[in-house]
Amino acid sequence: MKIYFACSISGGREHEGIYQQLVKVLLLLGIDVPTAHIADTGIEEIDGREAPGDIYQRDVDWIKDCDLLVAEVSTPSHGVGYEIGYALNLGKPVLCLYSQAVAVSKMITGNPHPRLTVLTYQNQQEAENLLREYLSAFRT
Amino acid sequence: MKIYFACSISGGREHEGIYQQLVKVLLLLGIDVPTAHIADTGIEEIDGREAPGDIYQRDVDWIKDCDLLVAEVSTPSHGVGYEIGYALNLGKPVLCLYSQAVAVSKMITGNPHPRLTVLTYQNQQEAENLLREYLSAFRT
Repeated sequence: MKIYFACSISGGREHEGIYQQLVKVLLLLGIDVPTAHIADTGIEEIDGREAPGDIYQRDVDWIKDCDLLVAEVSTPSHGVGYEIGYALNLGKPVLCLYSQAVAVSKMITGNPHPRLTVLTYQNQQEAENLLREYLSAFRT
Repeated sequence: MKIYFACSISGGREHEGIYQQLVKVLLLLGIDVPTAHIADTGIEEIDGREAPGDIYQRDVDWIKDCDLLVAEVSTPSHGVGYEIGYALNLGKPVLCLYSQAVAVSKMITGNPHPRLTVLTYQNQQEAENLLREYLSAFRT
């Protein structure tokens, strides 16, 4: 199974700890996560040195190639919003997770697409549990 | 002419003054802007009271009905990123404007879609001029 993990990069890294835990859960389940590096500390500097067109093409190719997309949407991001729509358009299932402490765009929480699942968590442990449960239901 | 103006609501209102000026330019040109109210001060509270599904449906209907989309992308936003992709998918021209003082997602700046124009400005006057020039070229 291949999962595209999406999170804010240039929009802010306040929730980086959660990104790293979610990616860890995916990798420990043996899932291929081509974007695993975007959870790393310092990614915004590395990303900043790459040509925009190269990043765009690489990321849409990865979305096309994945089985589903998992997005952490607690920190606003144009890129993640775009990627969610891109994946849904391709018919890929999308899971969005966000902290109950933040307000998330209603273009995400109000989207009735049947392949979109939007869940909110109180803490890191609940976020991990929601991810595991979603994947478990998806795999059966 | 009908233009969908897009900007951050729940993601933050740091650039609200620019949103209001850009909407003013559009309205003074006699353009119909169904989303003009999202530039208003206090919109995040009004928006917060609306049902997410209603906001989503209203906004995608407005995108379908518009001639083009103008987005101010200085403040990250899942909704705006989603709307940009949605409009491009429908073949609508999209103009993104952002302040040179900020880093914008490479999923926006690196997107090679022929109908997408991404421009950066140094100050409010330049933002207004870029918008007027874009519309002028679009209308001829």
